[in-house]
Amino acid sequence: ELLEHINDFLAPAQLLAGKKLTITAGPTREALDPVRYISNHSSGKMGFALAAEAVRLGADVTLISGPVNLPTPQGCQRVDVTSAEQMLAASLAVAEQQDIFIGCAAVADYRAAEIAPEKLKKQGDRIAIELIKNPDIIASVAEQTSNTIVVGFAAETQNIAQYARNKLTQKGLHMIAANDVSGNDIGFNANDNALSVFWHDGQHTIEQSSKQQVAAQLLALIQQHLMQ
Amino acid sequence: ELLEHINDFLAPAQLLAGKKLTITAGPTREALDPVRYISNHSSGKMGFALAAEAVRLGADVTLISGPVNLPTPQGCQRVDVTSAEQMLAASLAVAEQQDIFIGCAAVADYRAAEIAPEKLKKQGDRIAIELIKNPDIIASVAEQTSNTIVVGFAAETQNIAQYARNKLTQKGLHMIAANDVSGNDIGFNANDNALSVFWHDGQHTIEQSSKQQVAAQLLALIQQHLMQ
Repeated sequence: ELLEHINDFLAPAQLLAGKKLTITAGPTREALDPVRYISNHSSGKMGFALAAEAVRLGADVTLISGPVNLPTPQGCQRVDVTSAEQMLAASLAVAEQQDIFIGCAAVADYRAAEIAPEKLKKQGDRIAIELIKNPDIIASVAEQTSNTIVVGFAAETQNIAQYARNKLTQKGLHMIAANDVSGNDIGFNANDNALSVFWHDGQHTIEQSSKQQVAAQLLALIQQHLMQ
Repeated sequence: ELLEHINDFLAPAQLLAGKKLTITAGPTREALDPVRYISNHSSGKMGFALAAEAVRLGADVTLISGPVNLPTPQGCQRVDVTSAEQMLAASLAVAEQQDIFIGCAAVADYRAAEIAPEKLKKQGDRIAIELIKNPDIIASVAEQTSNTIVVGFAAETQNIAQYARNKLTQKGLHMIAANDVSGNDIGFNANDNALSVFWHDGQHTIEQSSKQQVAAQLLALIQQHLMQ
């Protein structure tokens, strides 16, 4: 059994051989004017770890990434985007041809209602900026594909299982991986992660581990529970 | 004359020998909730180039930096901050003891009026977020110091000379360096820069060049025109 494990490590079972897999990663940035933007603390590490692991398992991987400071994992095709609308367009362009689509990006929920063409000058002591809702990328991908397995992520700071199960149903996903970003040891910018994974008739907890190991476990769950 | 230039390069005149110099660099990030923030495209490259050049000229350099992805220039002391309020506190803690204070950071003009303790859930199609004005760090430093030479930066996309001269006077600075961030070849994230520099009885244009060379020229202008 030990030998089997070692063999597995050296030449992992090509569980995703020949499968087409697209992963979104990182934050999106929503411009307020030519110099300012709204964004979030996503480092892109989890999505990049998933891409690297999927390549290792034999998949044909497209990585759609927001602005991050990470090298492209060897063997995958990278598409760089900035805003949620750009990420949506890049995602819908490929989604139908994928076997698996994993939305790991931390897409900004809102963007500026109007992007100022010049840098906004300081105005009063208090100002209000108006924001409008961004498209829901993973829900759009789920709606506009028929044979693609669609897996979402949810970053939560409270009531994790409840919010995650609601999103699974409302967005029409096949699986959702929720992580608790309220702590500092896992989630955004950290090297470790831990996930509570939900699908329609099951759930599984991936304990705290490196993002690479968490990625391997999540891909194994997708393969075991959604690819029959 | 050539030999003189070579000697100058190998062992530059220690124009700032023994001088204490603090430089702020990079953007600030203003939290909206535990995961979202407002920031800007400042890369920190210009401030870090100034710090490296000031060390080369013999100064005792403190670099107060917002979140950037740059290595600390050798020989300077680095203080990392996130928000404008943190940068203000770090700046005022050292400003009075400095010979020169250069505010090169792209400080967010506004921060959230209230930082939500939990991640904000998606709400309506349009929301307004209320922002309040951040402290003006370079103006506060100018106001609260008596013998420190205070140099500001201004990132503008239009009417550069007019806005810069207004800021020079209104903020009580000794010099202001304005750069035009409307193009892509200089300014934020670029490796080159070009500056229009104004002081009370003069002005000078630093033509487009590497940020390292622009830094050397700006420090020379400060030395020539403000340190008599």
